[in-house]
This record gives sequence, structure tokens and C-alpha cells, in this order.
Amino acid sequence: MDIQDLTRQLHSKNDSKIVMMVADGLGGLPMEPGAKTELETANTPNLDALAARGVQGASIPVLPGISPGSGPGHLGLFGYDPIKNLIGRGALEATGIGFELQEGDVAIRCNFCTLDGDGNISDRRAGRIPTEESAPLAIKLRQVSIPGIEIFVEPVKEHRFVVVLRGEGLGGNVLDTDPQATGVPPLQPVASDDDSLKTVEIAKQFLAQAGKILADEPKANFHTMRGFAAKPALSPFEEVYGLRAAAVAVYPMYKGLARLAGMDIVGNAQTLDEQLDVLTKHWNDYDFFFLHFKYTDSTGEDGNFAEKVQRTEQFDAIFPRLAELNPTVTIVTGDHSTPAYLKNHSWHPVPTLLVSDCCRPDGLTEFNESSCIRGGLGQFEAKYLMSLALSNAGRMGKFGA
Amino acid sequence: MDIQDLTRQLHSKNDSKIVMMVADGLGGLPMEPGAKTELETANTPNLDALAARGVQGASIPVLPGISPGSGPGHLGLFGYDPIKNLIGRGALEATGIGFELQEGDVAIRCNFCTLDGDGNISDRRAGRIPTEESAPLAIKLRQVSIPGIEIFVEPVKEHRFVVVLRGEGLGGNVLDTDPQATGVPPLQPVASDDDSLKTVEIAKQFLAQAGKILADEPKANFHTMRGFAAKPALSPFEEVYGLRAAAVAVYPMYKGLARLAGMDIVGNAQTLDEQLDVLTKHWNDYDFFFLHFKYTDSTGEDGNFAEKVQRTEQFDAIFPRLAELNPTVTIVTGDHSTPAYLKNHSWHPVPTLLVSDCCRPDGLTEFNESSCIRGGLGQFEAKYLMSLALSNAGRMGKFGA
Repeated sequence: MDIQDLTRQLHSKNDSKIVMMVADGLGGLPMEPGAKTELETANTPNLDALAARGVQGASIPVLPGISPGSGPGHLGLFGYDPIKNLIGRGALEATGIGFELQEGDVAIRCNFCTLDGDGNISDRRAGRIPTEESAPLAIKLRQVSIPGIEIFVEPVKEHRFVVVLRGEGLGGNVLDTDPQATGVPPLQPVASDDDSLKTVEIAKQFLAQAGKILADEPKANFHTMRGFAAKPALSPFEEVYGLRAAAVAVYPMYKGLARLAGMDIVGNAQTLDEQLDVLTKHWNDYDFFFLHFKYTDSTGEDGNFAEKVQRTEQFDAIFPRLAELNPTVTIVTGDHSTPAYLKNHSWHPVPTLLVSDCCRPDGLTEFNESSCIRGGLGQFEAKYLMSLALSNAGRMGKFGA
Repeated sequence: MDIQDLTRQLHSKNDSKIVMMVADGLGGLPMEPGAKTELETANTPNLDALAARGVQGASIPVLPGISPGSGPGHLGLFGYDPIKNLIGRGALEATGIGFELQEGDVAIRCNFCTLDGDGNISDRRAGRIPTEESAPLAIKLRQVSIPGIEIFVEPVKEHRFVVVLRGEGLGGNVLDTDPQATGVPPLQPVASDDDSLKTVEIAKQFLAQAGKILADEPKANFHTMRGFAAKPALSPFEEVYGLRAAAVAVYPMYKGLARLAGMDIVGNAQTLDEQLDVLTKHWNDYDFFFLHFKYTDSTGEDGNFAEKVQRTEQFDAIFPRLAELNPTVTIVTGDHSTPAYLKNHSWHPVPTLLVSDCCRPDGLTEFNESSCIRGGLGQFEAKYLMSLALSNAGRMGKFGA
């Protein structure tokens, strides 16, 4: 019995609006002892004003000390236990390029590779072949034809592309064919459960035909298959929470993650202002809005402290427009921390703020890493954010009599 | 493995005394932005003095964002995981009127209803028939006789009454017969597991006889059966904690919940002062005392902020009498928050205070919603309160060598 079993039972409906504003990688670190974090350095008058009306806390994306990728990070925010609800690598790769997986699909990350005359791998990444050379090869592989199976081949970047198999009875549990070594031949695909035996047969046929199609390519005369994964079976957002949910995101990965959770993807915004336009336009059509802002993460990954500060200020500046819509519940959070100091996702709890008229304000007047640890939400696992949101929106009944 | 599996293994005995003072619905909310909560408004010199000697925290009754009923709220305080230990509706209704359920009993909430000439329900609640008219009808149903089964019929209020079936082999998993609609006949009871097939047969016999007994009643010529429930199987308090436990409560519901946990119900107090008299009288007979104060909840449910403040002060005023008994461990808490602002149980963490000579005081000198979130116990699930109580009483051995 987990938190979604409870929200599934207890949720009710009303005309409230919940907005979850996600600044990807929001939390940070000081660059030197005694200094401030990115968020503490940024001038964020709007977030601080929200903090004065709200309650904050430190959200643990997965478990203490665990740094999540984008998948588990967002699943946690959406209330799906990120440990119980794994998104396989292939499914995440397909999601990240905007491919809409359907129930029963199996997605596979593929790497172009180079085989020598003996059929042994001489380069596992085909010399990191440039995208402009590899994309046409991926498209050429669309010639592969297997009766009863619909096949999608999508270029990604450099040596990487995605294959999606669509058909009856395809399980997603198949071992990688990449031997993780050179001088040996690629492995044959092997099923790790009975439900995936058919997938193995299809994969073998795909590889045989691909070998012929690529035979004369000088750099990339074959490919490996890795991270076989079925579409993850997430309970739809509306079923678990009773919320008609919309995602307002710029990048395919975040649209895809929201889609896996059953949200509608609305608009085609490229900037924060355009995202607010989209949100405003669809305000009456949905109960819940997920807005994703990427650049607090990408600047952190670049190790660019100053740029992350600037992007944080840009994020802050959008809140007056949100306030005009008067959401019942406003949440500000991140899917994980991305400190410029680490140039990477980290395990640190994420400053998280919840504002509603019944949130029990904690009296804090700033919103950052130092304040959130003294906040009224305490430290909590991100997966509990949705039950808090629903209760603050008056959308949850009592548990037990 | 949950916390009770650990306390069951590790508890030991001594002559310490633990008192858990429960102000039902203790936590609250400000009525307007920037204002104080009920507990912050109340003048509570005794609780504040205890806070100065103790350690406080914010207790989460079930999980973040979940508002509990009285059942799960109290089970959590008593250390029973409120999600794993569900009390069925029928069992709670019987408990609430002071009926002592025995092992193997099945309790059923029943509603008097009105059938038209075709046997269809015309009123699911028999016009909310007044208690003075419905109670005699419930008592008339005591004529129902089924061989091998002991039957109890107890009036509750208006259209509601309780039936308890006592006999061999009765499971509690039977679906409601209330079709939740008018113009259709009542449903037949249906077992949702094999162990409840006999219960269904008994229920059908009961309904057939009840139909005849009530046939000529103008308002309530039949009844439905809902919330079938076996007595919940809670490990007795003494087995899990090694504590001889007594409950000093005024209302049947809280006596009943304590009884389900294996506590003795002592005295027949009607006021806080009388509750302290009872506690004093039985001081040498028990190791653990649960004292329940109702009015911080009922005034909250009424939305009466001022009255809740006054009731909080009344609760505060009893502590000097408790101090005279010199408990080893004093706990002050609530089973959930009941903010007058919401007129309902809520999900907010409950201010909780623990005082012992080894509690590691946190230096706070007030006891309320704002202070508890900075307390030494942090935010914690209520189910951990009992292991903390035992340790503070010197009643827990080491886990592992």
C-alpha cells in the first residue's frame, strides 16, 4: 500500500487549480566554504514573497544520498514511487526524443559500431560518428521489415539511435548485445524472462537485416542493442488523483515523462513567457499544470554558477504572471539539485515551497537551501508532494472514520 | 518488519510510568494570513513549561497529506501502523457506541430504509427517521433468531443501527446491500472471499426476518447492511510493549479504540478533573495511561476558534495535577489536527511534546505549531511515538549486539 493507493481511494473533485512549477536542478551548493548557493545568490523577490505566505521544506528526490536522473526525479514529483516505478533505458531514450510509446511497445537504445573482417567489434561507438552521418544510416534501417511487427527507427545523436518494436506479445526483458569490449563479436540477444522470447526472435531478425543493410558502410557496419524496455505501466494521473493534468514544457524529455504519467502536452512554448501564455490559454481546461523550466539544470551541469543565478532570477520573474491566475495551490520545486560546483545532478534535498490558504505558513520569508531546512514541511520524500497538493486543494477525503 | 516487531523483541520492564495526554484535533491554522493558530493564541503556561524541559516535534498521523479519521489517528499514536491496521467501518461504528467486539465477531452498520409497494427503495435513510422512533425499531429487530448465531442489535442515531453477529466461521468481507440509489431494490449481500460465505447466509436470514418484522412500519419497512467488518486483529498492547495500559476517556469511541489495542478502560470520568482523579486512583495498577480530551476536536469541527482556544487552555490547566504524580515520560499530542478554519480533521502535522529526564531537550520554550517544526523530534510518523516513549522510560533493550 503506497501513497498512490491512498490518493486513488480518497481523492475528490472540485474547481481548484494546482500549479507545479519545476525549476530543473533547482538546488545548489556554495562554490567555496562560507559562500552562498546559486538560489541564495539570486535576487528572487517573487519567490521570497511566496515563501512568506507559504510553507517550505526540503524534498528528497528518491532516498537520502541518491542522485536521480530526470526520470526518477520527475516521477517522484508526480507522486510515483521512483523506486517501484522504473523507466527502462530504452523507454526513457524514446521518451527523450519525443517518441510516443504505446502500451506493449518495446524500445531499444542502439549504438552504431564497427566490425572488423572477422566480425569482431573494433569500435563500440563507430568512432563517435557525427550525427549528420549517422542519422541517414538510422533512416536507412527503416528498410528492415518483419511480418506482424511495426518497426520505428529514430536517430538520436552521434552513434546513438532508437528502435521501437510494436506488436503482440513483446516483453521488454532482454539482455544487451553490447559485449562492453572490443575484439569480440556482439552478443546475441537473450531473454531474461519467458514473456520476452518473442522479442529476442524479432531482435535477431532485425540485427540480421541491419547487418546486410549496413554491410558496406565504412564506419558503422553494424549496431548493438541495449536497454530493452517496455513502456512503463504508470497509473494515469487522472485515475490516481482525479486531476485533468497538462504539461507545459519545452524539451521532449519532460513532455515525454509527463505523457507517461498520463498528462496532456499543451502548446508549443519555447520561452517561459510563452509557457505562461499556454498555461493561461488552457487555464479552464485542466485542474493541474506542470510547468518545466530547464535552464537551472543545464547551467548547473555546465558548472556555470553565474549563469545558473541568472536563470534562477529569470524563473523568479515569471511568478507575477502566475499570480494573476490565482491558483488554489502553487508549488515551486525541482526534480533534483544540480549544483554548479558538482556539474551534475546531486542527492541534496530540493528547496520546495507550497502556497495555499490552508498550508499552515511557517513564517519564513526567504526561499532557498538554508531556509527550506527550517520549513514546516520538514524533509520529505518527493513522492508525498502530490498528496499534500491534493489536500491543500481540498481534494482529499478522510482516511478511515 | 515494522516498528512493533522491534518493540515486541526489545521491550523490557521496570517501574516507570508513561502518560500520553491526547488533545483530540490539537493542531490548527490561522483564521487569516499572518494570524496565530488556536494553540498559539491560547495561554498555555503549563505546556510551555513542559516544552522547556522536553523535546518536541511534528507528528504526521498517517502519511504527508493524509487526513485521518479517529480510528487511524489513534492507532498511529498507539504505535499501530494505521495503513496496515485498518478498522472496518462496522467495527468502528460498534466501537463508537461502546460495544465490546470479541474475536470472530462481525459488525455491520445498518440503515433503516423505506421500500415502495414494488420492493424498490424510495428512501435510503427512511426520511432520516428521528432516533426516538428508530431506536424502538432496532430493539424490535432483536427478535431475529438464527440457530448457532448470537445476534446483537444496537440503536445508533436516526436511521443508523448496528448489528453484530457472533458465531463460528464468520468472515467480515461482504459487500454492502445499499445500492446507493432509489427506485431499485436493495442488493443481496455478496461475499468477497470464501471465508465470508457463511456470513452472507446469516445476513440473508437476518434480512428476511427483518423484512417481516418491519413489514407494517410506515417509515422504515426495511434496512440495508453496510461496512461489514470483523474485529480488527491488533496485537495487544502488553504483548507489543510490555505495558499494562489503561485508558481514561469520556467518549465511547476512544474507550473502544483503546480496548481494541488491549488497554483496560478505567473509571467513568466526565471531566478532565475526574479523569485525573481516575488516573491518580489507578496510578499503581498500570504502566501506561492514555488520557483523551475530546473538546479541542469538537470545537475545531464546529469552526469555533475562540472556543477551541478556551478548551486548549482548559487542557493546559490540568498539567500541574499530572506533575504531582511525577510520570517518567509525559507525552502531549493529538491524533490529528482539526483547524477551526477547515471545520474538519486535517493532514497537518500535530504538535507533539515528550518530556523525560533523558529526552534531550531542544531548548524551545513554547509548544505550538511554529515551535514544533523546529523541535528535536523533527517531523515523524505518529507510529514511532511509542518506541520513543518506551526508550525514554528505560524500557527498551539494544537492537543487535
